[in-house]
Amino acid sequence: MKLGGIEAGGTKFVLAIGDEHGEIFEKTVIPTEHPEITVPKVIMFFEGKGIERLGLGGFGPIDINQESKSYGQIQNSPKTDWIGYPLGAILKDKLGVEVMIDTDVNVAAMSEVKWGNAKDVDSCLYITVGTGIGAGAYFNGQTLKGLSHPEMGHIKVARHPDDNYEGTCPYHHDCLEGIAAGPSLEKRWGKKGHELAENEKVWEMEAFYLAQALTNYIYILSPERIIMGGGVMKQQQLFPLVRKKVLEMLNEYVSSPHLTEAEIDQYIVPPGLTDEAGIKGALYLATT
Amino acid sequence: MKLGGIEAGGTKFVLAIGDEHGEIFEKTVIPTEHPEITVPKVIMFFEGKGIERLGLGGFGPIDINQESKSYGQIQNSPKTDWIGYPLGAILKDKLGVEVMIDTDVNVAAMSEVKWGNAKDVDSCLYITVGTGIGAGAYFNGQTLKGLSHPEMGHIKVARHPDDNYEGTCPYHHDCLEGIAAGPSLEKRWGKKGHELAENEKVWEMEAFYLAQALTNYIYILSPERIIMGGGVMKQQQLFPLVRKKVLEMLNEYVSSPHLTEAEIDQYIVPPGLTDEAGIKGALYLATT
Ligand SMILES: Nc1ncnc2c1ncn2[C@@H]1O[C@H](COP(=O)(O)OP(=O)(O)O)[C@@H](O)[C@H]1O
Ligand SMILES: Nc1ncnc2c1ncn2[C@@H]1O[C@H](COP(=O)(O)OP(=O)(O)O)[C@@H](O)[C@H]1O
Ligand SMILES: [Zn+2]
Ligand SMILES: [Zn+2]
Repeated sequence: MKLGGIEAGGTKFVLAIGDEHGEIFEKTVIPTEHPEITVPKVIMFFEGKGIERLGLGGFGPIDINQESKSYGQIQNSPKTDWIGYPLGAILKDKLGVEVMIDTDVNVAAMSEVKWGNAKDVDSCLYITVGTGIGAGAYFNGQTLKGLSHPEMGHIKVARHPDDNYEGTCPYHHDCLEGIAAGPSLEKRWGKKGHELAENEKVWEMEAFYLAQALTNYIYILSPERIIMGGGVMKQQQLFPLVRKKVLEMLNEYVSSPHLTEAEIDQYIVPPGLTDEAGIKGALYLATT
Repeated sequence: MKLGGIEAGGTKFVLAIGDEHGEIFEKTVIPTEHPEITVPKVIMFFEGKGIERLGLGGFGPIDINQESKSYGQIQNSPKTDWIGYPLGAILKDKLGVEVMIDTDVNVAAMSEVKWGNAKDVDSCLYITVGTGIGAGAYFNGQTLKGLSHPEMGHIKVARHPDDNYEGTCPYHHDCLEGIAAGPSLEKRWGKKGHELAENEKVWEMEAFYLAQALTNYIYILSPERIIMGGGVMKQQQLFPLVRKKVLEMLNEYVSSPHLTEAEIDQYIVPPGLTDEAGIKGALYLATT
């Protein structure tokens, strides 16, 4: 089946044509500008290519409730041009195909279970640590949705004793995203992320915040695997630091062989689909 | 269909015979003593009553992974007599019926969706604030399970500025359960819970902790309803306090009409099945 996939992010849109096995036949990347500029380019890419359905993994908050009047609309984004923009409805109308919508991180979790580093298990949590922090999950054969989609990046975390950075979240100041996403890291330390590579203190503090979040996700969701992606996780030294602190924080409370020194390296892992978890997830979403 | 249900708690076992509609024909309560004393009583209650299947909602941590060798065993309990006790296997063997096992709070969430205060929605989170704090959830037609069952009571919360009570959790000291369950409340203030009813400071602090937890659950799970039960919630003044603080903490980040002053009273609610959410959930579990 020929499917369309869109990974709609705050800085770029990834567009692909592929199939239900995650194979990609054609792919392009365009910048996220005003919707009147970006959306016509999206339509032009897909038009006349014979796609049967379209899946869209979008930057949240996005209305993913199929019964809602504002289904497929971007809500509350720092990208104000996009607020209330009926992206789903316009694509459906212009391309004449069903458009399935979910969050970028929910579809990434799904594709990691289908084809990536969680393909040997049934559930997984996918967290991206980049310009923002977002996480999605796939459980019981479905992505996690309820009242709305999860906004796991905005949970409250306890402060590192050496940190007095105020935080950047306009809603909560020092929620996880507010103190641990890429931009806050760069503001706290006054340098670009990749220039901080050698400063151990930076990654120790970052791991302290990320481990608190993962510990909460484990207590609340108990996923069978945790995948960590996004620009900040390019600092691979974070993985062993985060794993170690998660074990310390859990303090052996959850009895599982996966949550031990011997196996945690296979429990908290980078994406198996590297940068394609999102776009492949969008293709899979089109089949649902 | 004639079904058996067991709500296995740390202080008592509730046993019932009923049907798949949650009707209860016969019910009894026995104390939780050593398994060699309690389990024979359980078997005596069900024997010869013609039940076709049995559902058990158990006090965690309990192994609910059907593929695991220790399925149905209690793990890591403060009730040390019960650790490693193969409750599920023994009941199956002695009663000759299939035994379905889940946590007490997961089945309570399920029965509130089937017959209680969440019956108009598809998903719900059930939290009990009693001797311990536990929460379960029902989503996508199933209770929440993954690596293990959730242990939502043990998440980390930020300290109330006026609180220097050290916390009672043997694993984490001041996790949510460690500072906000009934026993810690009684130790902090030096009185029984019901004797503290008039002390506003107590409930303001308690609501501060519970609201943090609910806010995290909303960000991570996004349930369509939250049900709060357990002994501590008998202090009904907690409901408006918790609702108010949840709204403050969310700070309008999640766009949902249910998370507004107008509708939060219908979003965070007591159990519709009062004290029978657990046992009715166990009956329903037997049908799954
Ligand atoms: N090599 C790196 N080391 C540390 N931080 C990085 C690195 N590359 C990118 N980042 C951080 O990640 C953020 C971008 O995240 P990314 O996941 O690439 O994009 P987005 O979240 O916008 O989709 C940047 O703000 C930067 O702070
Ligand atoms: N009326 C009340 N007011 C405040 N706290 C109470 C009240 N009744 C019980 N509690 C608290 O709830 C705890 C018992 O919780 P409960 O949910 O009844 O049992 P369990 O959690 O053992 O199943 C007690 O430790 C006590 O601290
Ligand atoms: Zn925030
Ligand atoms: Zn704890």
